[in-house]
Amino acid sequence: MNNESQSVAIGVDLGGTSVKSGLVTVTGEILYQNKLPARASEGPKAVLSQIEASIKDCLSHADKKEIKGIGIGSPGIVDNEGMVKSPPNLADWDAIPLGREVEKSFEFPVFVENDANAAAIAESKFGAGRNHPDFLFVIWGTGVGGGVILNRKIYRGPSGGAGEIGHISVNFEGPLCNCGSRGCVEAYVGQRYLSHRTAEKLRAGEKSIIVELVSGDFNKIEPLIISQAAERGDLLANHVLTEAATLLGVAIGSAMNLMDLRVSIIGGGVSAAGNGTMNNIKHSVQRHVLKPLRADIQVIRAELGNNAGMLGAAGLVL
Amino acid sequence: MNNESQSVAIGVDLGGTSVKSGLVTVTGEILYQNKLPARASEGPKAVLSQIEASIKDCLSHADKKEIKGIGIGSPGIVDNEGMVKSPPNLADWDAIPLGREVEKSFEFPVFVENDANAAAIAESKFGAGRNHPDFLFVIWGTGVGGGVILNRKIYRGPSGGAGEIGHISVNFEGPLCNCGSRGCVEAYVGQRYLSHRTAEKLRAGEKSIIVELVSGDFNKIEPLIISQAAERGDLLANHVLTEAATLLGVAIGSAMNLMDLRVSIIGGGVSAAGNGTMNNIKHSVQRHVLKPLRADIQVIRAELGNNAGMLGAAGLVL
Repeated sequence: MNNESQSVAIGVDLGGTSVKSGLVTVTGEILYQNKLPARASEGPKAVLSQIEASIKDCLSHADKKEIKGIGIGSPGIVDNEGMVKSPPNLADWDAIPLGREVEKSFEFPVFVENDANAAAIAESKFGAGRNHPDFLFVIWGTGVGGGVILNRKIYRGPSGGAGEIGHISVNFEGPLCNCGSRGCVEAYVGQRYLSHRTAEKLRAGEKSIIVELVSGDFNKIEPLIISQAAERGDLLANHVLTEAATLLGVAIGSAMNLMDLRVSIIGGGVSAAGNGTMNNIKHSVQRHVLKPLRADIQVIRAELGNNAGMLGAAGLVL
Repeated sequence: MNNESQSVAIGVDLGGTSVKSGLVTVTGEILYQNKLPARASEGPKAVLSQIEASIKDCLSHADKKEIKGIGIGSPGIVDNEGMVKSPPNLADWDAIPLGREVEKSFEFPVFVENDANAAAIAESKFGAGRNHPDFLFVIWGTGVGGGVILNRKIYRGPSGGAGEIGHISVNFEGPLCNCGSRGCVEAYVGQRYLSHRTAEKLRAGEKSIIVELVSGDFNKIEPLIISQAAERGDLLANHVLTEAATLLGVAIGSAMNLMDLRVSIIGGGVSAAGNGTMNNIKHSVQRHVLKPLRADIQVIRAELGNNAGMLGAAGLVL
């Protein structure tokens, strides 16, 4: 914090568990950050007070830096009027004008965006998407989410709900998805599904070092763990992950065909894993896109990890 | 042609069989139209001369109307520099700057767009999309093509190839598609696939009035015929078409989830058929989109039929 005249934005990453805020420079440097419990189970008022507390804490560390504004990445659909609608994991939250509520307490403009879109914006401005004006951003974690960057801007769609790559169906006869549809790629590769299928194989007696890696607690199985096992040559893990990467590639290929995209950036837990999975996704995408796209396909690891949400939120301001 | 001071555009619809051109008013009225053989098998020069002949014929019928320009809808990918690349059914055609070539012979500006995109533009300006700023246009015919209209403009994608709804895979283990991928919705419901599967069932001894409708010539089976049989209560036809509509709905649902769309306009052969198929597509879409989209889903019949390409080409100018 040696340049006191530097201008910064406050980026807020609201999740079901915690609120993280940070002071972010125009180049994406995080000068200070904090993390508070979200108090999500106590309802919107409690969440709002935690957001405000975390912003105030950032302000108290801003010295004489010029604050350009506040950006918030939130779960749920953020409509074009800034209403945050039905965020999963936030209790009693129907539709709340989050930006306007937060603006009441501060003298700065407040911008709100869906969390996956915020992460996509972060990768575009500061991360793996810096040199790619157009890309499909995919978060592969608990579920499968994403965002579409077109000409360096987020594509929000007519009502702010765009980017639902996880709910592209890759098999019309596939497993039921939480969303009500069948065969959504999320219902194959999202953490709870992938972990469930892996645990079933282990219970059926298949051998794997995954059992060791989770100390026998099958609830701890997650894509990153499976990926680590795969890199150590574990056959079961390799099989599960190759299948998952292939299916994710099918959905990404369909999305690229529809939207004429060539680059996909993969974030979420698996993005911290080795190159095998990235390569498997890429090969699958190449098999599933139209010929004019095939040679140019790139599947790239996201760079910003857990800070993507906060950085993208700040990016809304900068 | 009573208002001689009216301004018009010339819309050209280039296909593998014929070139159709027309004088089109700003309200989408066709004042005059012609149709010439495309001479597609003779190579690009022959096709160009047919395009020019059809435009000249239109000009000779334009009286004193002000010609605003020429629009051409062409098969193949039309890139952002106006190059028409690898159009199917046009022989020896690699990449040709069609607009610039045609401009050499006329004193008007020439605009070129992919034919499916042109049809989408036509429905947006003059047809079923007049009151829908955002929609997914689907041509269900020989193959499955389409275009995306966002805020009343065509979404071309970074390099002009967007709208390939037919190459969304609805089953990663499905039949091979001409494009090299598997389970593309086109590989289930495109005319050649659908007709092939229907003919197989008939050869296997299943009863259907389709045999009558095509006078025993199974090569004449096409979605519209199957649709006509279905409306007359034919069980086989109903089964084939319901399955096809369901699968098309899966692909449309995936596209809507990704792009946050609620309206789909269906053109091509089947759009001339009864309401049963439209309703089946709609119900399938509703089962496959995310909850926030579900209540607002509309699946609408295209209105402009075979003139959509010409009208949309003119729409590029107007």
